[in-house]
Amino acid sequence: MADPLTSCTATDLLPLFGGSANATAAAAFICSGFAAVSDKLSSATYAIDNTYLLFSAYLVFAMQLGFAMLCAGSVRAKNTMNIMLTNVLDAAAGGLSYYLFGFAFAFGGPSNGFIGKHFFGLKEFPSPTGDYSFFLYQWAFAIAAAGITSGSIAERTQFVSYLIYSSFLTGFVYPVVSHWFWSGDGWAGAARTSGSLLFGSGAIDFAGSGVVHMVGGIAGLWGAYIEGPRIGRFARSGRSVALRGHSASLVVLGSFLLWFGWYGFNPGSFLVINKPYDTRGSYYGQWSAVGRTAVTTTLAGSTAALTTLFGKRLLVGHWNVTDVCNGLLGGLAAITSGCSVVEPWAAIICGFISAWVLIGFNILAEKLEYDDPLEAAQLHGGCGAWGLLFTGLFAKKAYVNEVYQGLPDRPHGLLMGGGGKLLAAQIIQILVIFGWVSVTMGPLFFALKKLGLLRISNEDEMAGMDMTSHGGMAYIYHDEDDEDSNGPPQFKLKRIEPTNSITPENPSPNV
Amino acid sequence: MADPLTSCTATDLLPLFGGSANATAAAAFICSGFAAVSDKLSSATYAIDNTYLLFSAYLVFAMQLGFAMLCAGSVRAKNTMNIMLTNVLDAAAGGLSYYLFGFAFAFGGPSNGFIGKHFFGLKEFPSPTGDYSFFLYQWAFAIAAAGITSGSIAERTQFVSYLIYSSFLTGFVYPVVSHWFWSGDGWAGAARTSGSLLFGSGAIDFAGSGVVHMVGGIAGLWGAYIEGPRIGRFARSGRSVALRGHSASLVVLGSFLLWFGWYGFNPGSFLVINKPYDTRGSYYGQWSAVGRTAVTTTLAGSTAALTTLFGKRLLVGHWNVTDVCNGLLGGLAAITSGCSVVEPWAAIICGFISAWVLIGFNILAEKLEYDDPLEAAQLHGGCGAWGLLFTGLFAKKAYVNEVYQGLPDRPHGLLMGGGGKLLAAQIIQILVIFGWVSVTMGPLFFALKKLGLLRISNEDEMAGMDMTSHGGMAYIYHDEDDEDSNGPPQFKLKRIEPTNSITPENPSPNV
Amino acid sequence: MADPLTSCTATDLLPLFGGSANATAAAAFICSGFAAVSDKLSSATYAIDNTYLLFSAYLVFAMQLGFAMLCAGSVRAKNTMNIMLTNVLDAAAGGLSYYLFGFAFAFGGPSNGFIGKHFFGLKEFPSPTGDYSFFLYQWAFAIAAAGITSGSIAERTQFVSYLIYSSFLTGFVYPVVSHWFWSGDGWAGAARTSGSLLFGSGAIDFAGSGVVHMVGGIAGLWGAYIEGPRIGRFARSGRSVALRGHSASLVVLGSFLLWFGWYGFNPGSFLVINKPYDTRGSYYGQWSAVGRTAVTTTLAGSTAALTTLFGKRLLVGHWNVTDVCNGLLGGLAAITSGCSVVEPWAAIICGFISAWVLIGFNILAEKLEYDDPLEAAQLHGGCGAWGLLFTGLFAKKAYVNEVYQGLPDRPHGLLMGGGGKLLAAQIIQILVIFGWVSVTMGPLFFALKKLGLLRISNEDEMAGMDMTSHGGMAYIYHDEDDEDSNGPPQFKLKRIEPTNSITPENPSPNV
Repeated sequence: MADPLTSCTATDLLPLFGGSANATAAAAFICSGFAAVSDKLSSATYAIDNTYLLFSAYLVFAMQLGFAMLCAGSVRAKNTMNIMLTNVLDAAAGGLSYYLFGFAFAFGGPSNGFIGKHFFGLKEFPSPTGDYSFFLYQWAFAIAAAGITSGSIAERTQFVSYLIYSSFLTGFVYPVVSHWFWSGDGWAGAARTSGSLLFGSGAIDFAGSGVVHMVGGIAGLWGAYIEGPRIGRFARSGRSVALRGHSASLVVLGSFLLWFGWYGFNPGSFLVINKPYDTRGSYYGQWSAVGRTAVTTTLAGSTAALTTLFGKRLLVGHWNVTDVCNGLLGGLAAITSGCSVVEPWAAIICGFISAWVLIGFNILAEKLEYDDPLEAAQLHGGCGAWGLLFTGLFAKKAYVNEVYQGLPDRPHGLLMGGGGKLLAAQIIQILVIFGWVSVTMGPLFFALKKLGLLRISNEDEMAGMDMTSHGGMAYIYHDEDDEDSNGPPQFKLKRIEPTNSITPENPSPNV
Repeated sequence: MADPLTSCTATDLLPLFGGSANATAAAAFICSGFAAVSDKLSSATYAIDNTYLLFSAYLVFAMQLGFAMLCAGSVRAKNTMNIMLTNVLDAAAGGLSYYLFGFAFAFGGPSNGFIGKHFFGLKEFPSPTGDYSFFLYQWAFAIAAAGITSGSIAERTQFVSYLIYSSFLTGFVYPVVSHWFWSGDGWAGAARTSGSLLFGSGAIDFAGSGVVHMVGGIAGLWGAYIEGPRIGRFARSGRSVALRGHSASLVVLGSFLLWFGWYGFNPGSFLVINKPYDTRGSYYGQWSAVGRTAVTTTLAGSTAALTTLFGKRLLVGHWNVTDVCNGLLGGLAAITSGCSVVEPWAAIICGFISAWVLIGFNILAEKLEYDDPLEAAQLHGGCGAWGLLFTGLFAKKAYVNEVYQGLPDRPHGLLMGGGGKLLAAQIIQILVIFGWVSVTMGPLFFALKKLGLLRISNEDEMAGMDMTSHGGMAYIYHDEDDEDSNGPPQFKLKRIEPTNSITPENPSPNV
Repeated sequence: MADPLTSCTATDLLPLFGGSANATAAAAFICSGFAAVSDKLSSATYAIDNTYLLFSAYLVFAMQLGFAMLCAGSVRAKNTMNIMLTNVLDAAAGGLSYYLFGFAFAFGGPSNGFIGKHFFGLKEFPSPTGDYSFFLYQWAFAIAAAGITSGSIAERTQFVSYLIYSSFLTGFVYPVVSHWFWSGDGWAGAARTSGSLLFGSGAIDFAGSGVVHMVGGIAGLWGAYIEGPRIGRFARSGRSVALRGHSASLVVLGSFLLWFGWYGFNPGSFLVINKPYDTRGSYYGQWSAVGRTAVTTTLAGSTAALTTLFGKRLLVGHWNVTDVCNGLLGGLAAITSGCSVVEPWAAIICGFISAWVLIGFNILAEKLEYDDPLEAAQLHGGCGAWGLLFTGLFAKKAYVNEVYQGLPDRPHGLLMGGGGKLLAAQIIQILVIFGWVSVTMGPLFFALKKLGLLRISNEDEMAGMDMTSHGGMAYIYHDEDDEDSNGPPQFKLKRIEPTNSITPENPSPNV
């Protein structure tokens, strides 16, 4: 029989309706039509959702480039290659370890409750519950955590220590946390599908203010605390001395790339976009929630950036672009938890407060003589924790029920009339992440210190790690073959267009 | 009854066809099948179109990073942080103001004809006529306009002035223009849905050669004119002195990022991609028009870059990469108006002429001692205006009718046999934008000047704004702890690999 | 009659089932319903596939930015603008030439077997077999090849030579190769649709380890060989002297951008994503294969980066970030051929070996005094060739049959039990590409040398091409108006925050 979807003609169908003798054929024909439609719709849905998730994953991956540029610009020129290498390795080593076991630990359900145990090396993959795009997306998240930590301990850590803590963090510490809060087996997440929810609610950490940012930030906190500040960061009197990064251009480049990639991080965390909601008409569905999440992300980051601009102007006296970038990133880290379940106006509150959270933690860090070259613990740890609380306060009923379906009336934000259960779960998440990362990463950094593997020598720190460990400096603006020329070599960089410029200081044409 | 889409079996359906008694059930069954299909198709269409529009919006957002890098590289090192901060703020402040009122002014129909008045703070949003993805997309456009203007007045403008004009431009001046030409209520646009079209045609400014680029460029023109040139830009004799930007690498980085983002700007302006045309067979639909728009964009930019390369070689005598980048951007700005309604070969003409338009306006600017550090008025204003004219000359009948549906026979390009009505509308658009931006931004810049808020002092201009307003220089290539070492410090940056290199000038291993 | 998809009610349908008199109407109604569904599904499929392909094309385009930054960072500061200009021109000149004839040569079937001959200037385009998105995607590939070659001959080639070889390569040499291996008419590709397959298999070069990377690398090999090494690259004794690039930051930026863009290059090469496979259930289709390709790409690059890190640490003694970046890119170039038809674990083997291939070829190049500033011939040529062999060894039966449909039992990887036919075809591809590029590009470079157009003068090489051909240096970190101040000018860049920093070397506040 012809395929009704491609060659359904009335002439063919007509005889089938003629009498009961043909009823069987008519029924089969119509049913095969619907079956074909159903298959094609299923295929289209997979294609749409995978396109959406894969391109979101690519954006999240671009954040690794953002981290690399932000970190590079925020350290002194002499340590540029060192920190960029750590960022490249986060992605590369993370690729292998997440494939071999990290993904299995995180999402290898059914699990024993603590840690996953399937899909090692992507065995028996893909399955109806997860395709390669999901693996790639989660890998891009995993490598972000280690990138955050590397900022905290920049400019003074032995490279071998970096390799050790990074593998441990992305291969074990982070996957366990993501298992608890994000997998269907996780004991603490709002998306749990097996067993009862924590406080009847589960913690809502939609895209990872806690799972990614706090984990990276708290790990960095312990690393930087155990290592101690960089030489010269605090004068003997205790006065703080800014060791400014070497390139504001790289800082801005990195920050914008992170903002860009955050559109994969937050809206992409829905995982699928082709899902109707049936609550406000056919035009409103998960695609709207995805878009709204992009909007709340934008507003929180924007507000935090503006608040930092004026806040720092009042406190310090100038308009500081690198501070504004950090404020922006703090706002983005904070909204990451609740981005999908809050109203746009609430995102503005989130961003406003996160700017002051970051400023406050930075003042506290100075007082405690805690040195974190990227402010990573303050930013990702502090603003990440604020983001979890914020969700417990401002999550909207309708959105919570749309995003986390299955339960009829979920607890939502305390200030939105949703009671304190969600907030309690959020507080538990903060405590659990702080505890888990502390009991795993703290001893590790301490052991590395005792073994003499953690910190570089004072001489190497003064000379810079690029020179001592990485084969040279990152920049050579003065070329070798100009060495023997007269005059200060840096004048070479000042050459101006011969046709329409004046050359007052250097009339010699061939220097 | 079972859902025919998921469990339609002939055995179930057979009895229903048996006799008239079951006709009701048969009819209901088949209808419910089609209804389910219709819902799923609707859902898929929303998912596809939102994926397409959101990722386009992300690309347009990446242009802000492109502007930041292009601007940074095009100014002197001492003003790098200043101009990058303005680019970050365009995005951040624009996020808030466009959410609060800018979007409402632009697209809050039904309007009073002049300005929109709904959706303030995204109230009663989303609606069947617009989802969050549309807001995000329009926000990314709005922030581009202010970014253009900041280039014109770079290196000499007080930061407070920047904050004022930028808010006014993105919050009011730009939204009004986009309302006139892009909203369904706009009096002058080709997509008007209420009332008669201007000259029976309406102006075609598909992605904003006028609405975005001319607006930003003309605003910059008035700012730069009222401020006057930078110190040293024109010698007392009137001779022009190039004040070259400090990093060609950043210029190329920014230009490529803009080109990359333009693929969101132009092809994305279709807003939806899942729309059949039924004119050339099922393979040809809006997806083809989207692809064609990406191709015309590519060809116009490419041709303009090549034309500039050879043109400047003839005029100036060398192959200049920053000029080529500006030529490229001029071609892209010009094609933005007609990208969706012209043939690829016409895009080549568009790019070729736009290169000469830019060269011509640059020569004129030098003669008039007009100083625009980014050539923004010449490029976005001049090439943007040329783009509007080009559309009036080369818009193709079939494409105009596909892209702007509803009217049977729309006026199209004069040289394509479409009469002069479209060209007339395009000329009106040029005049209206020039007039509107002039009567709003001109007085604003003039008032700022009278209030002493516009231009920085000569001392600050010589020292650079990074030092005087932003807390320091953007770059520190010479590290602090090397200060006390012997010899010219810049030699530090020249270090070479110890294992396989010669170190003639500095044999001491530990310096 | 009403449209059954939008207004199908049982009340309407009921009378039609009443008696045979209405059978015609009933049949027509149901058929029109299925026809409407079919149209909408077709439209949705085009929309999905074009969205997927267009955004993949944008990512591939971003690789051109990656090449520009990688090349810029890998050369000395004095040649930065020169090499960036070549990268901009690859895209721009390639846009025009690929539109005019390159695409026609490559995909203008039916062809004469050697070269395509339709679609010049996109005439009679789009067609049912190709839309604009396909053209854009292939253009983005074409410009990559020339970008590879420009790295090999960097820092010593006359600009006019660059223009000539680049046009010839992208306009003719590359399109012919892509015709042979990728078009349906190609004599050697696995996707051939006309005539018999090479060895009953055809060569599998899914995304172009051979077609793109080897072509660019072999062209570079001849160019660099005929030009000879840069001045100072090999001492008189034959000892190798590293002429290090001027910015590791740009190298890392470029490498990450290339990795980012590779997600368009490899997974995008499926061209369509909405295609069911019907082999493992409805959840498994081309979308899964696309995701798996992204995973194999990630794993090969990651493994190669890690292998290079430890390999070079053993060989050279330090952790080198630029070497790691090159290793990464070598792994990506190698997996490009087989990315869609191998298991993830095999991709790890691919990456591991490609790191040693690159290290080996680099050692060989040093011994032969072959100077390639970007290691382009070793990396894209050497690892590209290894990638073709790898596919012949590890291609998996199921994946080959899914990706290259039509034949029942295709030859696959030798080590996967698929016999030697595929491997034989892969070896033929290596030989054919080496031969074709050698007989076309070799004589061209030789002729340019004989005409005195190839290499710049020794004086120009010492001074740098930016100064002699491109109007100035790429960087001006020392501003003009600081010239007359006292002390070494570079100290200007060291300024620190006045509020909380020490300024020991320069107490004067207004310098």
